[in-house]
Amino acid sequence: MWIVPEGEIAGLMTPEAAFDAVEAVFAAMARGDASNFPVVREAIGHEDALYGFKGGFDGAGMTLGLKAGGYWPNNAKHGIINHQSTVFLFDPDTGRVSAAVGGNLLTALRTAAASAVSSKYLAPKGAKVLGMIGAGHQSAFQMKAAVRFGDFDRVIGWNPHPEMLTRLADTAAELGLPFEAVELDRLGADADVIISITSAFEPLLLDAHVTGPTHIAAMGTDTKGKQELDPVLVARSRLFTDEVAQSVSIGEFQHAAAQKLISEGDVIALGQVINGQHEGRGDAEVTIFDGTGVGLQDLAVAAAVVELAKQQGKAIEVAI
Amino acid sequence: MWIVPEGEIAGLMTPEAAFDAVEAVFAAMARGDASNFPVVREAIGHEDALYGFKGGFDGAGMTLGLKAGGYWPNNAKHGIINHQSTVFLFDPDTGRVSAAVGGNLLTALRTAAASAVSSKYLAPKGAKVLGMIGAGHQSAFQMKAAVRFGDFDRVIGWNPHPEMLTRLADTAAELGLPFEAVELDRLGADADVIISITSAFEPLLLDAHVTGPTHIAAMGTDTKGKQELDPVLVARSRLFTDEVAQSVSIGEFQHAAAQKLISEGDVIALGQVINGQHEGRGDAEVTIFDGTGVGLQDLAVAAAVVELAKQQGKAIEVAI
Repeated sequence: MWIVPEGEIAGLMTPEAAFDAVEAVFAAMARGDASNFPVVREAIGHEDALYGFKGGFDGAGMTLGLKAGGYWPNNAKHGIINHQSTVFLFDPDTGRVSAAVGGNLLTALRTAAASAVSSKYLAPKGAKVLGMIGAGHQSAFQMKAAVRFGDFDRVIGWNPHPEMLTRLADTAAELGLPFEAVELDRLGADADVIISITSAFEPLLLDAHVTGPTHIAAMGTDTKGKQELDPVLVARSRLFTDEVAQSVSIGEFQHAAAQKLISEGDVIALGQVINGQHEGRGDAEVTIFDGTGVGLQDLAVAAAVVELAKQQGKAIEVAI
Repeated sequence: MWIVPEGEIAGLMTPEAAFDAVEAVFAAMARGDASNFPVVREAIGHEDALYGFKGGFDGAGMTLGLKAGGYWPNNAKHGIINHQSTVFLFDPDTGRVSAAVGGNLLTALRTAAASAVSSKYLAPKGAKVLGMIGAGHQSAFQMKAAVRFGDFDRVIGWNPHPEMLTRLADTAAELGLPFEAVELDRLGADADVIISITSAFEPLLLDAHVTGPTHIAAMGTDTKGKQELDPVLVARSRLFTDEVAQSVSIGEFQHAAAQKLISEGDVIALGQVINGQHEGRGDAEVTIFDGTGVGLQDLAVAAAVVELAKQQGKAIEVAI
């Protein structure tokens, strides 16, 4: 079994490798070559923790395994972050475990890669203005991936707690781009691509806010009850996601679906666009990618980092 | 993270440690201190493999994690056994992975320990004759655990393929006990404790076979469709199991339940007997323990072996 410790990931994984891995696995899912297993997610009744497993098998990339871990809200007292996870890969030919990989940074990178992949295929032509909703830990990863794989010349942003907007300003500065804090109506009017990455439980971006050709990557909603977008906005947009069933049950599209404004049949797997099976944006004014997060993304980036670690002599081999 | 390789387990794990770990976790389950998570089990569409995860959390033993792996029926060509699994333990205080443990031998030991625990609490007084149905790989583990924790003076056995009975004869000889191959009616009449451990999909042991006070540990049925016992025999017996919901859905009791001969309310968690919450055998002539196999058993024996490995300097520590 190969071990790639959490501390090595930052020096190994590149945004390009994450982007390529996520793009390839979305394509494999849409071809039917890869599938995610049912998600296990349990409140364990200790430390208010949520723990579970997201697994899958990609028969094209020959990647099998799971991400295990969860959310420990009191981890600050241990000096570690609240989201803790580890990815385990298995040999699809034998069922033997083949790798254990620190999953914390990988989760941030694969989530950022997913929205960047969605922008590659769905952003309006000539998109120059990136709008960020949310300024938490994950927002910096999102902005960096968007800027690396897009052609943005400025960033505007909004956050429920304005005092946190310094993260967006600092990240934009690091990327050499001007940043401006704006209200949501300005953000919806000016941005060509909007990434929402919050923990909101109510619509932040309303239908009236969004004007002109826009692509929205809604990356924050992965649980029943969470919400970032106005269901009316969802209903008038062309809808894409990583995993259709998940988007209408625990993803951003759950609310429009519950209100019967949309049905599962209105939601297109992004992989279909990657594969050329669907035209993508077409003549739609607004496209939305609901990034719900699937186990196969974790497996894909973990498999990529194991290969990089082996090449660079950073993977540790242990008998098991 | 501590690594305990598969090859070290045989030298570390004792039948007593497995017995104690399984007894304790059954008790914790019945007290509500420990619970198993939903089982994931998927045909991956490659090598005819079944792959999945069995997880749980024991808040009494503070054991959190999962067993991952499955059944690869073509593994002989790789020179390894068909059942391959690995147990991963997590720190319940932080969500960080704490151990990876080879799960193959542990699975055999925990399954054998479960039937031995059931016999401790449910066997008729003065049980002397052990009846074995099934002579596959797992049968030797079952017989060894039964003999170590019981007071048997002879073993009788039956197998669908009589040519395999040498395994039972050899194992009994190793244990210093006489062995006799018998037909099922003799087995059901003479044995005080019967362990069935086959991959059958039809009743082998019929109601008419079983006479006198008998405890049956039905250990082979863990999937829809599998079956070892006559539902009529099940219906007239006092019923125990590791996990009630599992016993009537994928365990031995699925058939009697489907035929409405029993209901879920007729099945008692063995942990209740261990905890003194239920009298156990009482005045029943026949008791049956349906050992369906739960993730918490795997976690319990894995946690025990990690402790033993640390004490004996056999655990390998790697950063992750």
